Amino acid sequence: MQPTNTLFPAHTGQHYLAGQWQALVPDFFPAINATTFEAMPWRFADCQNDELIQACQAAAAAFIEYRARSAKDRADFLRQISAQLKEHSAELLQVTALETALPTARLQGELNRTCLQLEMFASNLETTLQAAICQQHADPQSTPPKAALTLTQIPLGPVAVFAASNFPLAFSVAGGDTASALAAGCPVIVKAHSAHPATSEWVMRAIEKAIRICNMPAAVVSLLQAKSYAISHQLVQQPEIKAAAFTGSMRVGMALRQSINQRPDPIPFYAELGSLNPQLILPELSSEVAPVLAQQLVASTTGSGGQLCTKPGLWLVPQTAAGEQLLVTATAAISQIPAQSLLHPGIFQSYQTGAEHRAEHATLIAKGASAERQAQALLYSCTLAEFKQRPQLQEEIFGPCALAIRYQSLAELEDFVSTLPGQLCASLHAFDATKPEHQQLRQQLAYHTGRLIIGQMPTGVEVCPAMQHGGPFPASTDLRTTSVGLAALQRFLRPLCQQNYPDQ
Amino acid sequence: MQPTNTLFPAHTGQHYLAGQWQALVPDFFPAINATTFEAMPWRFADCQNDELIQACQAAAAAFIEYRARSAKDRADFLRQISAQLKEHSAELLQVTALETALPTARLQGELNRTCLQLEMFASNLETTLQAAICQQHADPQSTPPKAALTLTQIPLGPVAVFAASNFPLAFSVAGGDTASALAAGCPVIVKAHSAHPATSEWVMRAIEKAIRICNMPAAVVSLLQAKSYAISHQLVQQPEIKAAAFTGSMRVGMALRQSINQRPDPIPFYAELGSLNPQLILPELSSEVAPVLAQQLVASTTGSGGQLCTKPGLWLVPQTAAGEQLLVTATAAISQIPAQSLLHPGIFQSYQTGAEHRAEHATLIAKGASAERQAQALLYSCTLAEFKQRPQLQEEIFGPCALAIRYQSLAELEDFVSTLPGQLCASLHAFDATKPEHQQLRQQLAYHTGRLIIGQMPTGVEVCPAMQHGGPFPASTDLRTTSVGLAALQRFLRPLCQQNYPDQ
Repeated sequence: MQPTNTLFPAHTGQHYLAGQWQALVPDFFPAINATTFEAMPWRFADCQNDELIQACQAAAAAFIEYRARSAKDRADFLRQISAQLKEHSAELLQVTALETALPTARLQGELNRTCLQLEMFASNLETTLQAAICQQHADPQSTPPKAALTLTQIPLGPVAVFAASNFPLAFSVAGGDTASALAAGCPVIVKAHSAHPATSEWVMRAIEKAIRICNMPAAVVSLLQAKSYAISHQLVQQPEIKAAAFTGSMRVGMALRQSINQRPDPIPFYAELGSLNPQLILPELSSEVAPVLAQQLVASTTGSGGQLCTKPGLWLVPQTAAGEQLLVTATAAISQIPAQSLLHPGIFQSYQTGAEHRAEHATLIAKGASAERQAQALLYSCTLAEFKQRPQLQEEIFGPCALAIRYQSLAELEDFVSTLPGQLCASLHAFDATKPEHQQLRQQLAYHTGRLIIGQMPTGVEVCPAMQHGGPFPASTDLRTTSVGLAALQRFLRPLCQQNYPDQ
Repeated sequence: MQPTNTLFPAHTGQHYLAGQWQALVPDFFPAINATTFEAMPWRFADCQNDELIQACQAAAAAFIEYRARSAKDRADFLRQISAQLKEHSAELLQVTALETALPTARLQGELNRTCLQLEMFASNLETTLQAAICQQHADPQSTPPKAALTLTQIPLGPVAVFAASNFPLAFSVAGGDTASALAAGCPVIVKAHSAHPATSEWVMRAIEKAIRICNMPAAVVSLLQAKSYAISHQLVQQPEIKAAAFTGSMRVGMALRQSINQRPDPIPFYAELGSLNPQLILPELSSEVAPVLAQQLVASTTGSGGQLCTKPGLWLVPQTAAGEQLLVTATAAISQIPAQSLLHPGIFQSYQTGAEHRAEHATLIAKGASAERQAQALLYSCTLAEFKQRPQLQEEIFGPCALAIRYQSLAELEDFVSTLPGQLCASLHAFDATKPEHQQLRQQLAYHTGRLIIGQMPTGVEVCPAMQHGGPFPASTDLRTTSVGLAALQRFLRPLCQQNYPDQ
């Protein structure tokens, strides 16, 4: 299907900044059809430094107005964004499907998730933000006298949000980072991902409507379109920016971190930079469970084109009969996986290169169907000794592939865990809670991951208060925080103690 | 008084690392008598790189054991450190008085505070750490099915603590940073401050006893003595170190930050780098209140030799009759302030230089008594216009002096606030909660400070759950955190989500 004017009649290709659609350098790059790799007729501007400065100054001015709005006003605003997204979602999802090649069902689910996030923050805003965290009454008789103290939280200021390519709705313009920053009382400047610029403009239009309906300061959200990385680095160095959130590659994220480190004042930087999400299958794996687990692993590895940050990229498989059986079933299952279009031509190209490279260091043991411009599901295998010797095998490959690592003993597995870099998730399969050696491994693994799972797949990150999405570096640059769930809002708040304030 | 063997019979001058008193380079530098500036017979080692590596590796090994201890065990340990500090406190305080020239009453108060901190964390440990932050029960019927999730907190790992000179007990070896890290479950490596090495050894001996009594891993706390800065930079770059806490000068703190930024993995860095703690006296100041406020400001500025991080260094005084009266009273009060020994010869020298330098940019309007090797209380004055033009006046001078800034209008004051760097505290005096223009100024000031005070002095930071000690940069390098109060412990924890764990 090709885009039509009916599908996106209001398209401008401009930035939304300081409350205006505008662009100094318009028509700079086209949206790309992720299935055909062809340029679509929608073209987009390239953000210039002057525009960036204007956006930041407008956001700083909007902050003064926005932070003074009540929690209820902000909650209404978040709910209105959700309502606007739903109102024309049929057209939006068609645009997004063209840009990302993600199936409609997945996109519908992602839109639901995006709206759920906005509504979750809205529902919890009044209880989370209005109440004092802690209060002490004055006691002038005590030695020394005690002052009246009220510990509250206030927003940090304008936040730079870098949209991710793999969640064009839920981790993009109106995604979790934007929702949590707005909930906290911070204006947001979104650097749109150049892989889904039309989706980004569409979503920004929904936010713009919500701004108008809720009478919010127009610059409370800005959208910058850009193809090059330079503007991202300039953005995080602007003095008005008080925090930045990023989900993407290690290379880009670490470069942004370096730019942030050059600021005279440190600011929080919440970056999710990659995770292998190891699946540790214990030697106790039974032959009954092996084929079931194999099917689950293949489905979790190849779902959404293997483009989820929680994809189980490493399978630690025991060298037992059940372990063999698991791999036999997985090999058969992989061969049934159809070829899939990836999010954009760049990711497809990286996948091809990564897969070729991997074949130099591990054995390809299974492959799915192939098609032009589409990714083939792949399963590689190596021994744990080989994995340790070949650092290339520790690189994340974004796409529908996994590496099965054969190990011989629990001791070997413990050694693997001890040098494991930080992960978003890790699972233990065939875990027996009554075995002390299993418990010891679980305890050890906990210090290398943000979420520790017993006997389940890591994909499918539920948006709920008990969720943790983050983890030790490189899973996150700030392991104290989460980017999914209610606590994501805490990233954009800081404590303020009010002493002896008359209202107390 | 000179030190005697009776006062400190067990003195070794060594580091305590990997559970042993040891030193490759002993007798490197002496403790200095802060009153006479003379070297005392106690000499101390200079930490070497090999010792540092040994300390970090031992701390990482101790972490595995220590993190597994129950909250109750850790609470007992903290209480035992407190008990040990109290047991021989008479001798300890004499040693500290020699090294810091702080009066005995102040030191007794500081020891109480140190013990209170340890006990506060101990009392709250079981409720803070044991309970799940948030729990979700499994719901297999829901679409998609909901997993059982338990959100908990786990300790980060070994923490580097840099002792401050101005609180030789409460922000040093067994101070708030150490107490909160130990409470969280993190081993601590303290880099002792070279201005009070004997106090540091004394306190480490108390901790060592507590380690033995509570059967804790010996390397759960280490003490490194050093005169040079190099070892501090090496310390924060060790892979075993997972967080660092620092209180001290902007120059040293920012250099440490640079070393941390060179690590491949980002770690939290909690540094308190200075604050001017402005006192905004509103134009409504009455002639009744003016002399009382003047006395309070002088007492708060010159107490503890003006060496508190919350010293009111800037007084914003209206150009009114009452403002004049305030300055007249303050001038008279300053002249009555005796000369005071400062914490060490280096701080005395910096104070002298800073004061001379300040006289080039502001008018000296009052001075206290003078004496050799002692600091004279000083009050300078300038207009707000001059303050804005002369960046030198924005530098913090550690010691018993303040700068009175004369302003003409509330608009001028608002402009001052808009460019104010981050502060630990700021006070509003002659504040009228019913005046919208006062409320507007208060709202604006809130975004520049960690603690906002109405009509009280900033000094005297109470250790209690509602306290906030931190603030926007440069008050802190991480404005989301506090170094005083119960929440200080959160700096050394991070979330872990346990999914589908059988015990749930």
